Amino acid sequence: MSTSRRTFLAAAATVATASTGASAPVNTYPKLVHHVFFWLKDPASREDLAKLLAGLRTLANIETVRAAHFGVPASTEKRDVVDNSYSASEILFFDDTAGQKAYQDHPIHKQFVADCSHLWQRVVVYDVIAA
Amino acid sequence: MSTSRRTFLAAAATVATASTGASAPVNTYPKLVHHVFFWLKDPASREDLAKLLAGLRTLANIETVRAAHFGVPASTEKRDVVDNSYSASEILFFDDTAGQKAYQDHPIHKQFVADCSHLWQRVVVYDVIAA
Repeated sequence: MSTSRRTFLAAAATVATASTGASAPVNTYPKLVHHVFFWLKDPASREDLAKLLAGLRTLANIETVRAAHFGVPASTEKRDVVDNSYSASEILFFDDTAGQKAYQDHPIHKQFVADCSHLWQRVVVYDVIAA
Repeated sequence: MSTSRRTFLAAAATVATASTGASAPVNTYPKLVHHVFFWLKDPASREDLAKLLAGLRTLANIETVRAAHFGVPASTEKRDVVDNSYSASEILFFDDTAGQKAYQDHPIHKQFVADCSHLWQRVVVYDVIAA
């Protein structure tokens, strides 16, 4: 485990311990969020979704990834503002933009694209820095 | 601090301690992610952005919110797939859809909408469940 990841988790634990119940930890997560949405060419294919999710999980092994969340649309209330048209979601946390760049150029990421990009028709990426 | 939040953080710490360095924790975060993007009516107004971010921070006080990340577009590489047109980002983690529903109906959330909805022209919500 890297020093940075250990530091982050220690910090998160400290915040939680110090919390008195009323306030949730805010921005105790690593600062940079990389959120990617995928729309499969064949949205009805469970097999393609499973392949994509399996590919996504390999990304968590990249050294600069501090935490990861992979998923699908949740069954929350349908509202006009909710976009649940995507097939899969990838959320990765990094310490900074350098960590995100290292991920972008990493062989594991390139392998994922080579293995899985034929599955999707559209990708949208949001990179967010804590503010 | 709620029992659930304490349990989550303890679990995360356990995973981290057990990690041997090669693999990052995957989906050790609470399962439901509620990610909202806001486009301000006046994207150039630093004051409006500050008001919106201040309003967003109040949401972390809702009991079912397990963790929160608020931010703005990161200065990552510009690519066709990257959408950096939004003004602010809200990421909240919940244990489940019931927790997200409780947040949706919570007085703090309603107050936030009453105080801040005049600031934005567009909102897009993505709800993701771990898979």
